[in-house]
Amino acid sequence: MASEHPPVPDFSRGDGLLPAIAQDASTGEVLMLAYMNEESLARTLAEGEAVYYSRSRGRLWRKGETSGHIQKVRGVYVDCDGDTILLRVDQVGAACHEGYKSCFFRQLTDDGVCVVAERLFDPQEVYGPTSTPDES
Amino acid sequence: MASEHPPVPDFSRGDGLLPAIAQDASTGEVLMLAYMNEESLARTLAEGEAVYYSRSRGRLWRKGETSGHIQKVRGVYVDCDGDTILLRVDQVGAACHEGYKSCFFRQLTDDGVCVVAERLFDPQEVYGPTSTPDES
Repeated sequence: MASEHPPVPDFSRGDGLLPAIAQDASTGEVLMLAYMNEESLARTLAEGEAVYYSRSRGRLWRKGETSGHIQKVRGVYVDCDGDTILLRVDQVGAACHEGYKSCFFRQLTDDGVCVVAERLFDPQEVYGPTSTPDES
Repeated sequence: MASEHPPVPDFSRGDGLLPAIAQDASTGEVLMLAYMNEESLARTLAEGEAVYYSRSRGRLWRKGETSGHIQKVRGVYVDCDGDTILLRVDQVGAACHEGYKSCFFRQLTDDGVCVVAERLFDPQEVYGPTSTPDES
């Protein structure tokens, strides 16, 4: 009987980049979505800290390399199609470069967009007024 | 002062398709990732049930249209970059067409891949032996 599963994960999909969801391992909160190539996944598994691929900068990007807000990886999962990765992590500080715990701090409703989370830090104090935040 | 936020969400990114994460509103479990275009998001907000865009079939796809495993939407969120959507949903039945509650039923470790969830139904009984599951 042939395997029902494609290669795991299948980096041939998405031009070598797959979406990777980061979820707080303790609270279940969805923190962010970034992208991984094969090397970033291998480094994440080997080192136990999240390493993504920054599409805007075209290079590997260790989460927290500027801010110190690293993600300690508790588990790595792959979906049924092999084209999405899920990380369960312990988030140091906050995931979002805008100062929120999660990047999903805005809710869409029929009335528009509203901020539904509390800001934990001032981005300028963490990243400086002119530096680039460590987000893709 | 100029707005620090791009359009919300910004469908000009990703060729008009943005990744959309579905999370169980009660348990926090990450259920699946699919894609949305502007029309699918508008229908999701208007109708209160998740409607995605199937990349493989090139058309809108109401989650559960074959299986009955619909997603009742409790909240819609957008990330800081405006290029990822998060749905908090009540999942009827199971999200995964392979019979698991979540599509992320496999864990990656140094030793390989292992199934870490319990199968809730036989896919052939829900979708039939020859039919196409309602997943993108």
